[in-house]
Amino acid sequence: MSKVLKHISEPADLRQLPIADLPVVAQELRDFIIDIVSTKEGHLGASLGVVELTIALHYVFNTPNDLLVWDVGHQAYGHKILTGRKAIFDTNRQKNGISGFPKRAESEYDAFGVGHSSTSISAALGMALASALQGDTEKQHIAVIGDASIASGMAFEGLNHAGVTDANLLVILNDNAIGIDPSVGALKQYLTEVKAGTTHRANNIIKALNFDYSGPIDGHDIEGLIKELNRLKQIKGPKFLHVITTKGKGLKQAEEDQVLYHAPGKFNKETGDIYPKTEVGLPPKFQDVFGHTIVELAEKNPKIIGITPAMPTGSSLKYMMERFPDRAIDVGIAEQHAVTLAAGMATQGLVVFCNIYSTFLQRAYDQVIHDVALQNLPVIFCLDRAGLVGEDGATHQGVYDIAYLNCVPNLTLVAPLNEMELRNIMFTAQQGLSFPLAIRYPRGRGYHVNWKNEFETFVFSKVHQLNHGKKTAVLTTGTIGNQALNVILSNQNLKQNVSLYHFPTIKPLNEAELRKIAAKYEQIITIEEGSIVGGFGSSLAVFYNQEEINVKIKHLGVPDCIVEHATVLQQQEFCNLDENYLRNLLERYLNL
Amino acid sequence: MSKVLKHISEPADLRQLPIADLPVVAQELRDFIIDIVSTKEGHLGASLGVVELTIALHYVFNTPNDLLVWDVGHQAYGHKILTGRKAIFDTNRQKNGISGFPKRAESEYDAFGVGHSSTSISAALGMALASALQGDTEKQHIAVIGDASIASGMAFEGLNHAGVTDANLLVILNDNAIGIDPSVGALKQYLTEVKAGTTHRANNIIKALNFDYSGPIDGHDIEGLIKELNRLKQIKGPKFLHVITTKGKGLKQAEEDQVLYHAPGKFNKETGDIYPKTEVGLPPKFQDVFGHTIVELAEKNPKIIGITPAMPTGSSLKYMMERFPDRAIDVGIAEQHAVTLAAGMATQGLVVFCNIYSTFLQRAYDQVIHDVALQNLPVIFCLDRAGLVGEDGATHQGVYDIAYLNCVPNLTLVAPLNEMELRNIMFTAQQGLSFPLAIRYPRGRGYHVNWKNEFETFVFSKVHQLNHGKKTAVLTTGTIGNQALNVILSNQNLKQNVSLYHFPTIKPLNEAELRKIAAKYEQIITIEEGSIVGGFGSSLAVFYNQEEINVKIKHLGVPDCIVEHATVLQQQEFCNLDENYLRNLLERYLNL
Repeated sequence: MSKVLKHISEPADLRQLPIADLPVVAQELRDFIIDIVSTKEGHLGASLGVVELTIALHYVFNTPNDLLVWDVGHQAYGHKILTGRKAIFDTNRQKNGISGFPKRAESEYDAFGVGHSSTSISAALGMALASALQGDTEKQHIAVIGDASIASGMAFEGLNHAGVTDANLLVILNDNAIGIDPSVGALKQYLTEVKAGTTHRANNIIKALNFDYSGPIDGHDIEGLIKELNRLKQIKGPKFLHVITTKGKGLKQAEEDQVLYHAPGKFNKETGDIYPKTEVGLPPKFQDVFGHTIVELAEKNPKIIGITPAMPTGSSLKYMMERFPDRAIDVGIAEQHAVTLAAGMATQGLVVFCNIYSTFLQRAYDQVIHDVALQNLPVIFCLDRAGLVGEDGATHQGVYDIAYLNCVPNLTLVAPLNEMELRNIMFTAQQGLSFPLAIRYPRGRGYHVNWKNEFETFVFSKVHQLNHGKKTAVLTTGTIGNQALNVILSNQNLKQNVSLYHFPTIKPLNEAELRKIAAKYEQIITIEEGSIVGGFGSSLAVFYNQEEINVKIKHLGVPDCIVEHATVLQQQEFCNLDENYLRNLLERYLNL
Repeated sequence: MSKVLKHISEPADLRQLPIADLPVVAQELRDFIIDIVSTKEGHLGASLGVVELTIALHYVFNTPNDLLVWDVGHQAYGHKILTGRKAIFDTNRQKNGISGFPKRAESEYDAFGVGHSSTSISAALGMALASALQGDTEKQHIAVIGDASIASGMAFEGLNHAGVTDANLLVILNDNAIGIDPSVGALKQYLTEVKAGTTHRANNIIKALNFDYSGPIDGHDIEGLIKELNRLKQIKGPKFLHVITTKGKGLKQAEEDQVLYHAPGKFNKETGDIYPKTEVGLPPKFQDVFGHTIVELAEKNPKIIGITPAMPTGSSLKYMMERFPDRAIDVGIAEQHAVTLAAGMATQGLVVFCNIYSTFLQRAYDQVIHDVALQNLPVIFCLDRAGLVGEDGATHQGVYDIAYLNCVPNLTLVAPLNEMELRNIMFTAQQGLSFPLAIRYPRGRGYHVNWKNEFETFVFSKVHQLNHGKKTAVLTTGTIGNQALNVILSNQNLKQNVSLYHFPTIKPLNEAELRKIAAKYEQIITIEEGSIVGGFGSSLAVFYNQEEINVKIKHLGVPDCIVEHATVLQQQEFCNLDENYLRNLLERYLNL
């Protein structure tokens, strides 16, 4: 199909072409991305927006010797295709396939692994300082960062340091006014004014931080980009190029609905129409249970506030932002600020739901400890995407939160079994707590089509026995309890001999119940969709040791290694968290 | 002694005075601070620098109804003295005394607990948004932040959000060009230009973020401050006042050596002379073992780099900054950037020692996981102040690091027994690692006057048996092993019956050794100066469970509660980590 792209297996091939041919490459690259993503799914809009920039960068710079860091990496599909991964691009985000993000282990062209935002300036600056120290004055170091990412504190820290170095660093701002959701904040407003020409370019923030600023320029004009990049290549010290792009460029619908086409699922590559998903009759996504329930509660409780750091769509806080715009806040990619803002609000008696993906709460760990837990402020953290996350892979796994929150004093940590329990926890929490609470729930769908139960009070200390058996006790926390129940009910022997206890509350432990369980069964198995090290099971192990209670326990959970991209089910299999593994384990114990 | 200050027991009293009396209050407040800190120790320079600002704030604003947040809180001594804590100020930082930082539980005037930097804008913005939502348009919300703190990413996130709100927020920049060490970074350079008048005030960064900017004004002119604060009180929306102060103001030596007088220890209050400390014959501080050893290693290995986020003095990286200014970098209060910068350098083959206090690495937790560990980059983290930290108290405890690092794949975590082992670990690590390493070591002094041993290779997997006994095995990690050895050697019965094993390596565990130990002893005791939950002992507990090895284990460590300010010894007693507790426990086991 393609005329030019088919001859490009690495950037060196691209550099052989005359500039006049590059718009053809751009068109073919765009078609290739649309072709694959329309059937294999993945992130679309960000990569379409930087097709010309990607080509220009590999054309001007001598990659992989010159080091190119893509912030976040949603936008690196074109980069992957041009750097030797065209033939395997259709394995994107699949088990044993290529990662959806740049990854050092995958290609020498991926100078730095990414996934979380706002790391590129720090990483590229580190590389640039390293080159200078090692006497390499020719090597170029480029960070490409979006306008949502650059507003994060970490990016500012990188700029603030770079500005007092003479590092050979080029920061390219890919300004499309949107992250996954539209960008927010004062810096974004400011950049908008710069683009509109209402603020004088010479006096801008970036220049104040000692960068050689140029732009804004059109990010879809390959020739203009190449000219400017070639000019910047000659300039020493930290440089900043402001490039204006359109997210979803080249696919009409993707340009028009940039949020939807960030990762649209399967779509018709000719028309761009997204294939309708059969949602009828399916249980809801957990994020929507959160999103609709907070609105329902907020209707009656004026003290409720919702906060999201740049995930209104992903967290479904968007429903509350629509209904109560003053009481639901997107603070942008600013997890640290989100948590301490919540703490400040909580001091004034507000009931704050701070919704942050499990993996992104890692960004605000200190704030959880220092600003919330030490002061015992009743902030309610909703940790979406807790557990295994599937295709986003290693960078996004929500498997550390139990371990990193378990050790935090004052905090209560819960993991509901299903949608109704999530609702009841939220209902109970908003009535007023005397402690901070973290609620972890997974990516994906729940279990019940009719999930809008009447609210009931959630009793934090209560443990739920879901099956009564004689010999072995399985203790689970979170939604993995549903799988354990499936296994136990699948077989009469298991049903009669295995008890199942669901612990919605991971911390503090119900110690009385644990004593009873230890006295009653020959064998205990703990199961959690999170790190075994430091997890729910480890707390039990320590408790029994401290109490000098002699029990046999086996711990299932995520092992101490990296879990790569695959489906959630495949990841569960990798972790021995699938139903088959549990069935075999239980049968082995019962046959002893 | 004092004429006016003695009549002030709360800010309402202050507000009764004519402005003309306030310079007298300032002088008396300064004398009072010097008087107490000269004998009781504590942070000096920061509080002396804001005496006039403190008085002006409480004079103009209706505290505690108006909400005043002091960033970090080093500078809040004057605030504490004026807000009802004058009579107990001499208990500062002592067990059961007042905290060295603002603390909500201590006073209604302490609107937000602080200790770590750069939280004040987010917290005060949260309060301001809460007031607006609750219909209070009169309440004032003030954040006082230093120029070192405002350069941290989190503060930028707060400013970036505040700038698109109409919150009634006043941010006061206390610009003294120094944190604990002199401020760094492009923003600091920029502020210097603003002060010098070489950059036009109207076009500054803060205005670009939508703040109503005023200043810079003289922070030691009470009347000028009051006038400006009264003016700002009338202005709606986010406001920013740039105040120039001198750290240590009023004590000549403190003004001249601002780093030394940040927390000078005991000094002569008349002359300002610091009383000489008897250092001769004492073992070194661990920070100095790090600081001198990295220089020693860097002399021979040109690939070694040192990074500190704003702690050159506290970490003793200053020695390397003096010796190799190009290879030792203070990045300012920017822990996130520090870690990812280190990762970027490591990709280029440099050997990076990234020195961050245990409590501050909480700020860069995501970067440790996402940028270092997932990519298996051999960054060497030196976690100073790991364990109990004494008088700085709850906000600074380094007791969570084992728990939050234990669950991170690829990472190796070690805790040396003493200075020599720290040196050997550093020596071995700089020869080249294939994994990231975290070395935790405590605040304070080591154990050996002659600590500059010849380097020996550190074997990560090796466990050291320090005493051979028959019945009970004590397993320790880190310097607490020295105390355990004291206890065991103190008594013939213990010496004969208790074995002591030092595990320098917490992760990964030496499983073969653990199997042998389990087979050999009736009872195992684990001891660590860190959270029991998720700690070294919990890893052992899980390991033995997974291996179906039946052992009796007792875990000593920091319990799941907040450990307040006191001496380290008092904190160890509180945690049952002192020698007496261990002696009694061991005797109890041996008598069973």
